Amino acid sequence: MAVFFELNRKSRIPLYVQLVTQTREMIARGDLKAGDRMPANRELARQLDVNRNTVITAYSELEADGLIESHVGRGTFITAIAENRGKAEATKTEPSPVMWNTLMLSTQRDRWLGSLLGSQQPRNTISLAHGLPQAELFPLDDFRRSVDRVLRKEGRELLQLGLSGGYFPLQEYLASHMSLAGIKATPEEILITNGCQQSLDLIRRVFIDAGDEIAIENPTYPGAISVFCVTNARFVSVPVGEAGMDLDALEDILSQRRPKLIYTIPTYHNPTGARMDMSARRRLLDIAIRYRVPIIEDDIYSELHYEGPLHPSLKAMDQHGVVISINSFSKIGFPGLRVGWIVAPRVVIEQLNITKQNADLHASLLSQAAIYEFSRRGLLAKHVRRVRRAYAVRRDAMLEALERYFPDEATWSKPSGGMAIWVRLPEQINTSEILLHAAERGVTFSPGEHFYSSRPQLNRMRLCFTMASPAVIEEGIRRIGSVIKERIVSLKKQRAMRAPEAMRALV
Amino acid sequence: MAVFFELNRKSRIPLYVQLVTQTREMIARGDLKAGDRMPANRELARQLDVNRNTVITAYSELEADGLIESHVGRGTFITAIAENRGKAEATKTEPSPVMWNTLMLSTQRDRWLGSLLGSQQPRNTISLAHGLPQAELFPLDDFRRSVDRVLRKEGRELLQLGLSGGYFPLQEYLASHMSLAGIKATPEEILITNGCQQSLDLIRRVFIDAGDEIAIENPTYPGAISVFCVTNARFVSVPVGEAGMDLDALEDILSQRRPKLIYTIPTYHNPTGARMDMSARRRLLDIAIRYRVPIIEDDIYSELHYEGPLHPSLKAMDQHGVVISINSFSKIGFPGLRVGWIVAPRVVIEQLNITKQNADLHASLLSQAAIYEFSRRGLLAKHVRRVRRAYAVRRDAMLEALERYFPDEATWSKPSGGMAIWVRLPEQINTSEILLHAAERGVTFSPGEHFYSSRPQLNRMRLCFTMASPAVIEEGIRRIGSVIKERIVSLKKQRAMRAPEAMRALV
Repeated sequence: MAVFFELNRKSRIPLYVQLVTQTREMIARGDLKAGDRMPANRELARQLDVNRNTVITAYSELEADGLIESHVGRGTFITAIAENRGKAEATKTEPSPVMWNTLMLSTQRDRWLGSLLGSQQPRNTISLAHGLPQAELFPLDDFRRSVDRVLRKEGRELLQLGLSGGYFPLQEYLASHMSLAGIKATPEEILITNGCQQSLDLIRRVFIDAGDEIAIENPTYPGAISVFCVTNARFVSVPVGEAGMDLDALEDILSQRRPKLIYTIPTYHNPTGARMDMSARRRLLDIAIRYRVPIIEDDIYSELHYEGPLHPSLKAMDQHGVVISINSFSKIGFPGLRVGWIVAPRVVIEQLNITKQNADLHASLLSQAAIYEFSRRGLLAKHVRRVRRAYAVRRDAMLEALERYFPDEATWSKPSGGMAIWVRLPEQINTSEILLHAAERGVTFSPGEHFYSSRPQLNRMRLCFTMASPAVIEEGIRRIGSVIKERIVSLKKQRAMRAPEAMRALV
Repeated sequence: MAVFFELNRKSRIPLYVQLVTQTREMIARGDLKAGDRMPANRELARQLDVNRNTVITAYSELEADGLIESHVGRGTFITAIAENRGKAEATKTEPSPVMWNTLMLSTQRDRWLGSLLGSQQPRNTISLAHGLPQAELFPLDDFRRSVDRVLRKEGRELLQLGLSGGYFPLQEYLASHMSLAGIKATPEEILITNGCQQSLDLIRRVFIDAGDEIAIENPTYPGAISVFCVTNARFVSVPVGEAGMDLDALEDILSQRRPKLIYTIPTYHNPTGARMDMSARRRLLDIAIRYRVPIIEDDIYSELHYEGPLHPSLKAMDQHGVVISINSFSKIGFPGLRVGWIVAPRVVIEQLNITKQNADLHASLLSQAAIYEFSRRGLLAKHVRRVRRAYAVRRDAMLEALERYFPDEATWSKPSGGMAIWVRLPEQINTSEILLHAAERGVTFSPGEHFYSSRPQLNRMRLCFTMASPAVIEEGIRRIGSVIKERIVSLKKQRAMRAPEAMRALV
């Protein structure tokens, strides 16, 4: 049977979401039945005049839901599950008189997190995609005992409603812990949040009005892009080089326009791994003071330091109170607990606190107290030492494997900390295409385009070394290397045969 | 010495915050020193031409911070701590070139939650103020064992990053649990949040654009007021009577304007305790369908049902998919864990999920899994039966005490569920004034004005019966009753002596 989609290109709902929704509706109506064949993604992309990735994303969503399944060489088919579920849904309620799609603002981007974590990879896929700690390194027994201890000691208080500023012992602990790194802050200058993603979102809510502008590094953390560059804020991109943020570019920008905030990851920048040196840090602070634009310092990777001198954070160097620093426990060990914090002048923390309260009252007291107890007993420091050693070895393994398996045309960062290596391939290569082939060979990574708020560099890729053992990293890099090399060969062949049409099609 | 404040009445920063900030600045500059006397609140209120409550709130903030202290009969003084801290702060950093107050939007109201929980009451104060479960009833041992069990079983998964939709076993559990109450939902039609406050905030972000309007019950949950009536949304208030939302008023409104959503608490309404009967529920659904305006049903109190017929939720009666239902575990036992959920058509859940991801990635997996394990093993059902019995006894104790100790001029609700009784006093009485005197006698409650988005009824008060034993409730009601009776006597006396000036001053 023929499958008809009607895409609304003016809608703020992403095209792939429209494809998914309409497929579900066709299943619910019985227009699509078990065994029906879906158009090939290339064919559907051409027919609808959309990017092939749009169709691929839609299909992978439908596949993750069990509604379709692909058979290599035969095609993609509606599953029996889908038909049954469709029937159940169809009989359940009468059609809604509410046109939900017209009521929702849908200003949100697609699920950048879901696209990483939500996709179901076969069990033995090698993942170099995620900037996450490896679960095998979690100190489970120590953690479980810490949880048990706090629940015995003050279970009633932890299950009761708390204060939006945070669990006070954790605020106190963080104040003293940060003083070791040269950051002076009282517990009242610290707000506990559900991690850096929420910290960024709260900062946006307190500072960014419709039409306000923010200066943001390009590339940067995708979660910051969805907070600052998607809703009604405007943004200006500041390039990031090997030495971190391009400060000449920043000065140029500030001499012409006045963003409300500058967002930066000065230490082990995500995704480039760059670290600003001392003079760059001083200059950035000078610029912020001169133009009176506060800095949001994302300090989340600073504990993952493997060698060389340890630079103080901008917040530690800040003599004037122009830096708001955000950090969390998620990179060193506990992303599932969702605990992070903001350090800022007290007047700022007060407004963030009110906003936090309106957003969700407070962070889980059980999570906060568990981390506090674990940290207080010195177990966190021990764990950090352990992951530092493990990750340094993995980084070295990845650098070696890159030398061995990647083509001569590729270059990459050699970070002294953090979780990832940033690779640059020849201009003609699109790493999202490379990913499709790499995934078929059982290895994934993050294509560069995810990290750009503007002018995406499609020939970059981020390779994370934290979630796999050195041997697995080597195997992963070997497979990706062979995909890239094949691509380069085929590009050269095509270039020789018939330029320039083929080139355009490939890029 | 003289204390000079300069208030900016056009600023969006609340006046009390300005008072607090300027006091701190005077301390930091050394203009105020240890032992200096602050103006009496009545005197300062007159001098600055502000409401006396503004000064009282500012002073209580400063006192909670340890910067000032009051001595009965002598006055309010700057503490030694304040002077030391002020000096430390003054020497710590050079003055900031960033004018934080001019950068922040400060559209937020004052801390409605902080005003309840942040205020430090003496240890033996009787609290009838909080709609919270009593910590003494928490099933601590069972809960601790559940946490230990899930951490042993799948600790690695719980500490790792999860999916923004929620911990899937909990979504499945909720789907099956709600089916018992007649709500048909698949796990994919459920989004796990950090509780109802976040659910409301996410719904606002998905549906409410600048200038959009929401129909909101008046009075209602203060957290909903801060979400829907403070940021750039507009709102229209629908009165609530003894039978719940005034549906004639709602129809009048909908025939003239088109709000995006209707927010209601149909079962044991906060603060009035009202419950919509079956015919009112049907009519509300009819109205929503007819005018195509979705309903946000806040179902958080429905498990706290003490007697009489149990009405199905609007969501269970909804044949057309016009209801978004929110609920949480916070009223039956675990507010500190911050876990709630939203049930909605899948297309809505998908957008809420993306918004949740941008807001904070996901809710604490440890909190989610702990509650799941506790519920799955039947312990939650057992706990709910226990608190229902306890709260029913407390409600009866409060109703009896009201009969005994409150003046004849007072009337109150007799709710068949929920956490509170709603009291109406004679028009001339302001319950915020009553609270000041009651607090002096060691008992607190929530004055009515907190619950209104417009036209506050100052003669109402909410008395919660969940956090105190029957004997303590009786004592609390006795004390409040005597304050009210004295107030009535003094009002009558003054009315007899010199009306009408005195009356105006008192109301």
